Amino acid sequence: MREGLILKISCPDKPGLVARIASHASEFSANLVEFNQFIDQGCRRFYARLEIDTGSLEIPIEDFIASFEVLGRSIKADWHFRRLPYKMRTAVLVTKTDHCLNEILWRTGLGEMPIEITSVIGNRRDCREIAENANLPFHLVEMKEDKEAGFRRIEGLLDEQDVQLVVLARFMQIMPEWLCQKYAGRMINIHHSFLPAFIGANPYRQAYERGVKLIGATCHYVTGELDAGPIIEQEVERVQHHHSVQDLVRLGRDCERSALAKGIRYHVHDRTIIDGRRAIVFPD
Amino acid sequence: MREGLILKISCPDKPGLVARIASHASEFSANLVEFNQFIDQGCRRFYARLEIDTGSLEIPIEDFIASFEVLGRSIKADWHFRRLPYKMRTAVLVTKTDHCLNEILWRTGLGEMPIEITSVIGNRRDCREIAENANLPFHLVEMKEDKEAGFRRIEGLLDEQDVQLVVLARFMQIMPEWLCQKYAGRMINIHHSFLPAFIGANPYRQAYERGVKLIGATCHYVTGELDAGPIIEQEVERVQHHHSVQDLVRLGRDCERSALAKGIRYHVHDRTIIDGRRAIVFPD
Amino acid sequence: MREGLILKISCPDKPGLVARIASHASEFSANLVEFNQFIDQGCRRFYARLEIDTGSLEIPIEDFIASFEVLGRSIKADWHFRRLPYKMRTAVLVTKTDHCLNEILWRTGLGEMPIEITSVIGNRRDCREIAENANLPFHLVEMKEDKEAGFRRIEGLLDEQDVQLVVLARFMQIMPEWLCQKYAGRMINIHHSFLPAFIGANPYRQAYERGVKLIGATCHYVTGELDAGPIIEQEVERVQHHHSVQDLVRLGRDCERSALAKGIRYHVHDRTIIDGRRAIVFPD
Amino acid sequence: MREGLILKISCPDKPGLVARIASHASEFSANLVEFNQFIDQGCRRFYARLEIDTGSLEIPIEDFIASFEVLGRSIKADWHFRRLPYKMRTAVLVTKTDHCLNEILWRTGLGEMPIEITSVIGNRRDCREIAENANLPFHLVEMKEDKEAGFRRIEGLLDEQDVQLVVLARFMQIMPEWLCQKYAGRMINIHHSFLPAFIGANPYRQAYERGVKLIGATCHYVTGELDAGPIIEQEVERVQHHHSVQDLVRLGRDCERSALAKGIRYHVHDRTIIDGRRAIVFPD
Repeated sequence: MREGLILKISCPDKPGLVARIASHASEFSANLVEFNQFIDQGCRRFYARLEIDTGSLEIPIEDFIASFEVLGRSIKADWHFRRLPYKMRTAVLVTKTDHCLNEILWRTGLGEMPIEITSVIGNRRDCREIAENANLPFHLVEMKEDKEAGFRRIEGLLDEQDVQLVVLARFMQIMPEWLCQKYAGRMINIHHSFLPAFIGANPYRQAYERGVKLIGATCHYVTGELDAGPIIEQEVERVQHHHSVQDLVRLGRDCERSALAKGIRYHVHDRTIIDGRRAIVFPD
Repeated sequence: MREGLILKISCPDKPGLVARIASHASEFSANLVEFNQFIDQGCRRFYARLEIDTGSLEIPIEDFIASFEVLGRSIKADWHFRRLPYKMRTAVLVTKTDHCLNEILWRTGLGEMPIEITSVIGNRRDCREIAENANLPFHLVEMKEDKEAGFRRIEGLLDEQDVQLVVLARFMQIMPEWLCQKYAGRMINIHHSFLPAFIGANPYRQAYERGVKLIGATCHYVTGELDAGPIIEQEVERVQHHHSVQDLVRLGRDCERSALAKGIRYHVHDRTIIDGRRAIVFPD
Repeated sequence: MREGLILKISCPDKPGLVARIASHASEFSANLVEFNQFIDQGCRRFYARLEIDTGSLEIPIEDFIASFEVLGRSIKADWHFRRLPYKMRTAVLVTKTDHCLNEILWRTGLGEMPIEITSVIGNRRDCREIAENANLPFHLVEMKEDKEAGFRRIEGLLDEQDVQLVVLARFMQIMPEWLCQKYAGRMINIHHSFLPAFIGANPYRQAYERGVKLIGATCHYVTGELDAGPIIEQEVERVQHHHSVQDLVRLGRDCERSALAKGIRYHVHDRTIIDGRRAIVFPD
Repeated sequence: MREGLILKISCPDKPGLVARIASHASEFSANLVEFNQFIDQGCRRFYARLEIDTGSLEIPIEDFIASFEVLGRSIKADWHFRRLPYKMRTAVLVTKTDHCLNEILWRTGLGEMPIEITSVIGNRRDCREIAENANLPFHLVEMKEDKEAGFRRIEGLLDEQDVQLVVLARFMQIMPEWLCQKYAGRMINIHHSFLPAFIGANPYRQAYERGVKLIGATCHYVTGELDAGPIIEQEVERVQHHHSVQDLVRLGRDCERSALAKGIRYHVHDRTIIDGRRAIVFPD
């Protein structure tokens, strides 16, 4: 990722927004490399993401960011600048299966995801070895008896490590409301079904019993309501009557890996904006 | 479709079934063109579909079919022979939108579906013209006030026309239990969502509000429980945040056409066997 | 389609283009409903498509269009305004198979494609009936002996009908160079393979013999080089070893219909810009 | 994988083959768990794959296998029995990129692929670490100057390790004819394009320049003719005009991983039969 800035912005829609926002950038000779916008006609709200090449910027980047304040306020916007390159401090929470963790490690190693994994946190020991082979700290937080204490312990680890993103990579515990709220818009889950079908436990068994011809996986932001947060990405795979539950688990792993990896990628590249119960995603 | 026979069979599983069934065919010099089998390990039941070339058969086809009786009973089988070529007498029920009806007409014209459409039955006038352009009788059965009378009228039409298959091609009325039972395994619906997500009315609006990234359509057998019958085929299409409900309706039409056409095709070619709440489908 | 304007523009890239173009619109209180841009880093060229709501425009639309001239010249742009709503005058050329023609008629009827079909031109009689049922003129232009005369006759028909778009809907004749040039960027073909694989005749037989596991169709602009013009859309379908050439023809029809319909839709909505040998497509 | 047998067989087609083959199994009380057959109508040849549960077999497995000889000869068959469970001795050849190797290691670890990796052979050092972390021998065979000597060295390693399957997991060297012949039907390659498009070097650059809207990967048996062997599996991914060659490389990795993994899986489970230039694949 080059040097530059990403600007995410949302505000009430009105004529001239693109011109005003783009003009602010060009005023100081910044160059727009990518410009995506979307108007939600229902709530009359404007959403945009700009990728700005600051190589030709005539003022210091800090000043450029600060100078946006006047415009941002006058159009009643929520906005956020991210300086490139960067790595997002990310904790990965796991339980037993390791394919999602593996995928994240592999893509991070390839440079596909600009994240820095601060640690792997598991409520079982199963993923310890893979974390340690990747030279990552592994924290075992058992949650058998006192779940609330376990979540407090997790909160403490996330605080200590100054985590910006929490990834639930097949973490098989239901997050408490208070932790969901603390990490609202910064906690991503992979659910092993094509939501909203098969919410909750054992979705592959549910899918088998219903006799569906496609199974799927859903990457979404975590909210207090189970499996109901804004969806970032979904993948499906075709199945047939002869596939057992175990076959669905196997085939579903590929959906899960892919949907989670894309979801994280979109989030980390600031390509997502939460719009109520839905997520705006400007894919790359 | 050549001259020949299709045999669908199911029975309790035990060793030697393939040999016994195939031997029966070869005994009279029939040739197996296609052989599909499946063992449901849960209920220990054997299912098979055989496509038999009768060109070299040494006895009359009727005798061949009759001679199967001894074997069929001894293995406690349910079985069904279909003589090829044939055309399945089919009624198409519609309401307002015509894309599914159009698709069926087009594929029937191309010879992709060996069906004979006995009539088009609508609870509105919208599809009258397209039916009549295709030289098909159109029956208007209004269902505004006395729905039960409407369904009795429909039953009468199906009886009169000696219909073997009822296709609900975006027929926007909930079938009564008694009619579902009368046509159990012979009534196919297209639901405009990826079931079991978004059961019932306005699935595209539901999908929009949930913010899914894939929409779908489901072709299934109709049972007394709404949108819960055995699934024959499902299709999905990728969507994005900027697609309105109207866009989903447009994009979904392609899923609906495709899933319904494949579902009918599999049924009419005897490629489906109902196995409890699931459908075994041997695709072509 | 609402009242409004579509602006397609391309020019050498430099900082500030988005701001200048968007500002021109907002200066006269036009509202940008959609804004897509792309910078080809190879040739340092900027491409954009704007959809403009002119409901709040303070000057007559003609004046707005005319006033863009100064900006357009100063940034050395090629640009084009299209007033909405409109219907593009379109001729459909066919030979024998009618599934692509059918699809165009069906989608046009549904309002998915803002085109006015001026006539159907065939080098065989096969599609005469379907054209006439749709109340469209059908012109038979036989091309057995004197092909050049045939193409001159087609040119004459296109001229007479003031055609803006020529769609080759499974027209099985190779267009002469001079006609390709006359309709450069305004003639769309559907090729029944996943180009660049299987250029030329009998692609499904070629695909069968090569034993591919996916077949496809390609919608592209026609150039003088056979099947080598800029690609607008491609579709694929999974196939297996047991599918005969005839099966591939059947399965491929769905790819052809879909890819052609999307390709026409993108073109007619001004969502395509030709960039050398490639087509930029801003999908809807 | 349970105890049992897989039988692959091909012979000239004639009536009664299914009955005769299945009867041989049932004669000794073996149970057919899966039965797939295919008749190539062009060359009138019969192909089948049987998965046999030998738990109830009344004679020793060796005797059962030996007893098939009489039947096999009388129907002029080529056949092959494989005893389950087993692990196929497999060498993985690599050059620089490691995603395909990673995928194989990951799936092998999960038990998805019954293979025993005898060693990783690379013509560069890049994959040494990943091999050694997985406790696998890594052999560096440099091929800069004397390629023939390099291939002789590889042959020696394969011989020593008694390798049954050679996987070219992005091995960027063209195999010599003699080595292709020695491992005919036992050497699998992943090519990073949707063959037969973009044969040879730099397929992603070729794809970018052609402006395709879908990229792909092809898993195939290696023959003396470059990228022309029987295709086992193909995958595609949708791309857009804004994707650079580097983006295509990134997106293509997912196709490559998936197609190669499925291809190996089908081969190792004896689900493939080579039929001239095509591969029959009975997918699971």
